[in-house]
Amino acid sequence: MKVSGDLLIGGAALRGGAASFSATNPAIGSTMEPSFAGATKNQVEQATAIAWDAFPIYRETPLEKRALFLEAIAENILELGDDLILRAMDETGLPRGRLEGERARTVGQLCLFAKEVREGAFQELRLDPADPDRKPAPKPDLRLRNVALGPVAVFGASNFPLAFSVAGGDTASALAAGCPVIVKAHSAHPGTSALVGSAVQQAVAASGLPAGTFALLFDAGFEVGQMLVADHRIRAVGFTGSRRGGTALMNIASERKQPIPVYAEMSSINPVILFPNALRNNAEAIGKSFASSLTLGAGQFCTNPGLIIAIDGPGLDAFINAASAALQESPAQTMLTGGMCEAYRKGVARLSASLSVSQLATGKQGTPQQAAAALFETSSASFLSEPELQEEIFGAAGLIVRCRDEADLRQVVNSLEGQLTIALHVHQDDLSNAAEMLSQLELLAGRLLVNGFGTGVEVSPAMVHGGPYPATSDGRSTSVGTLAIYRFLRPVSYQDFPPELLPAPLQSR
Amino acid sequence: MKVSGDLLIGGAALRGGAASFSATNPAIGSTMEPSFAGATKNQVEQATAIAWDAFPIYRETPLEKRALFLEAIAENILELGDDLILRAMDETGLPRGRLEGERARTVGQLCLFAKEVREGAFQELRLDPADPDRKPAPKPDLRLRNVALGPVAVFGASNFPLAFSVAGGDTASALAAGCPVIVKAHSAHPGTSALVGSAVQQAVAASGLPAGTFALLFDAGFEVGQMLVADHRIRAVGFTGSRRGGTALMNIASERKQPIPVYAEMSSINPVILFPNALRNNAEAIGKSFASSLTLGAGQFCTNPGLIIAIDGPGLDAFINAASAALQESPAQTMLTGGMCEAYRKGVARLSASLSVSQLATGKQGTPQQAAAALFETSSASFLSEPELQEEIFGAAGLIVRCRDEADLRQVVNSLEGQLTIALHVHQDDLSNAAEMLSQLELLAGRLLVNGFGTGVEVSPAMVHGGPYPATSDGRSTSVGTLAIYRFLRPVSYQDFPPELLPAPLQSR
Repeated sequence: MKVSGDLLIGGAALRGGAASFSATNPAIGSTMEPSFAGATKNQVEQATAIAWDAFPIYRETPLEKRALFLEAIAENILELGDDLILRAMDETGLPRGRLEGERARTVGQLCLFAKEVREGAFQELRLDPADPDRKPAPKPDLRLRNVALGPVAVFGASNFPLAFSVAGGDTASALAAGCPVIVKAHSAHPGTSALVGSAVQQAVAASGLPAGTFALLFDAGFEVGQMLVADHRIRAVGFTGSRRGGTALMNIASERKQPIPVYAEMSSINPVILFPNALRNNAEAIGKSFASSLTLGAGQFCTNPGLIIAIDGPGLDAFINAASAALQESPAQTMLTGGMCEAYRKGVARLSASLSVSQLATGKQGTPQQAAAALFETSSASFLSEPELQEEIFGAAGLIVRCRDEADLRQVVNSLEGQLTIALHVHQDDLSNAAEMLSQLELLAGRLLVNGFGTGVEVSPAMVHGGPYPATSDGRSTSVGTLAIYRFLRPVSYQDFPPELLPAPLQSR
Repeated sequence: MKVSGDLLIGGAALRGGAASFSATNPAIGSTMEPSFAGATKNQVEQATAIAWDAFPIYRETPLEKRALFLEAIAENILELGDDLILRAMDETGLPRGRLEGERARTVGQLCLFAKEVREGAFQELRLDPADPDRKPAPKPDLRLRNVALGPVAVFGASNFPLAFSVAGGDTASALAAGCPVIVKAHSAHPGTSALVGSAVQQAVAASGLPAGTFALLFDAGFEVGQMLVADHRIRAVGFTGSRRGGTALMNIASERKQPIPVYAEMSSINPVILFPNALRNNAEAIGKSFASSLTLGAGQFCTNPGLIIAIDGPGLDAFINAASAALQESPAQTMLTGGMCEAYRKGVARLSASLSVSQLATGKQGTPQQAAAALFETSSASFLSEPELQEEIFGAAGLIVRCRDEADLRQVVNSLEGQLTIALHVHQDDLSNAAEMLSQLELLAGRLLVNGFGTGVEVSPAMVHGGPYPATSDGRSTSVGTLAIYRFLRPVSYQDFPPELLPAPLQSR
């Protein structure tokens, strides 16, 4: 399928009227066809206006029809076949295997939400019958259901060109909730976005849904996203990206006449705590698997393990030796964009230059477009006194914090900001120590895991991909797993409604 | 029981170190004993520090113990007996019957949350078992539960000295969720607050809970509340009051290093839409019951029906005649505070002076401390062009918007800000018209009701006392009913945990 550079609005493909841009192949730095023209203010307004008009119809679509629509999107994505994979490979530098896996995850996610929609539990139907004889006052008939918030602006993420982009988790959960979606494509993979966007647009038409149910907008800069979040018809925002980008959207949203929720997944260094007996018994294996997790996908995962916390001793030294040896053998990898590669190198250079940090290992060097893994060490005292050491370096860079003793380690843990994940590596003899720390850890992260690493996020009913600020803007939510649908709903209560006026899902009860 | 003017912190009664104030009997304007001294910065920090220390213990209290604690609070409040009612009558000007009813509601609310705690559904326990044989990658064991957010700051509301104050809905739901609570007492009923506070404090001690589970602070001004919301150990806020107060707290919360959720219930004019056939058939009865609802409790309810929207015609005139006649006979009532009475008079005077508003009726005049009901009328054109006509006048003031036709009425409805409730008065022949408007109304309010008024908020599983901004700060939540507990929870996922490390509620599954 040929990639179009057009905006997708209202079932049509329109050439954007603002500045245009092209995708770059990050592996070789070359520009790709076609050019994508950004949306003008009028085109953004056109998209939000028809999304608003589509909303009352789309949100009352029968559940079966909505589920079939989500499944149709999944089928259409699969039907794009290798065109999609090849374009995504060129635009992101990610290997085929990873992208095929991500496509499976994206399709699986859509089907999982289709199942949630069919089951309908998300509607939270509650029925509280009248009691006219109650004293001192009669009890009214009360019924409750969740309704969709309204049109949602979704920002494609650079690091998941399929699973967290045009038809990714935010879009799937918002559509499942009954919200029209307007996607602002990430400028790093516009062609991939265009292909997936056409798959969604075709599903909208084939399902007989209002054309405003979905739109895809491009932008060479930030204006389209800002306009979307400020538009009064947009009622929630899904975003995965940098802390700077996320907080900028949070500020726009909170300054609106009617503030709206922003679900921004922003930054996390995903601390890994190595307990003494785990190090005593298993340092080498943990070191190797840490190196694998750190370098997976060039370290470009939100759940990349960027921080190791452990107590000084021969076990920690053995871990460091094993991790360093593995990292030194790790090949350089192409990062998603040249800008990210540059930011990664700057972050690594900053740590290298820091007097309180020592460099332990560097991965193999590659082409000018590729990044080498890097491992650093610092003392607990430096970590505690230099908050900038907690800043995420997006990519395969890890920092080890060497603590003096358990009390010192606790203090380091206590200084952590909110995280997506915290991993504990424990031996049977560490369990009582770990248990003591658990209530502290639960307050710091959305997901805790034992003897593993956070990379590889299961899409399931018990997953939380979220966490306290600054990991996300709203630690009460998750952007992965079935609970994600609740981000786009609010409860409404109906009192003493005659049956014929009740919304259909509340009538039949 | 003698009323103490002391702060309640850590199981002790302490004299506040800041400026002191006294309650005023609003019916006669006289000052009451004792004096209440505000908390200093150090005292606020003392309260938040011990709340933080109590949190890990309190949140893991077995559910049965937590439920018994809530029931013990309820029992202790009842044991205060008439001392509580008499003090509240003196401090608020509210009549005995209303306060006895409110006490029953407060106690019932605590017992309802005790039941929710026992049932435990709020924990949202989810179990997603491992599948080591899954291809391409094994599936981890994932378990999920909701955990409490942390210590919560609750602001007592002026208009519900029992049900939305020290042991009211916010406190009950936060304690039920597992959050320690620090209450900033409303300065209009400090004695009532002190009595209820002692009931809670005694229940904490008798239940063997950490003393930091509850604290009660006084303040002559706003500093204590501001300090609480800014304190890093406070993790959520419950507030019922003015839009100015609520948005001030929202701003403090969003500017923290770690922003926190603020659940502020602020302002609502609770529109009532009178449909043509209802007016044709039933104008007089609706007019009379509107007047009753408008003047109930001197109009000092969040759900007071401040706005009537209807189409011009003889039915509307008949409604106005009936409502005006009833209001002219309504006695003046003492308002909660002299300040509120003054603000009410100013609001009424502002409408009276407006060239686009005509005054229809005034209630009987009373003492200088009492307020008379007032009814006004304006045209749809004026209402649409003057947004200040949507501003809440707290008290028994109503505004009727006369619309030209159905399209005009729709436009007026479309211009409304977010509301707690919208009421529809319909006859059988209006149902199809009403049904067409329903999807618009669902987006504007948390509760819709038919042929009634919003006053009288049922405490039940299907209640939503919330609504889009500015009715509340977070339209995804309710402050009344069992769903209120979810405001103070967030999900945490546990991956591949050995059984002995799992939190108790997830072990047994």
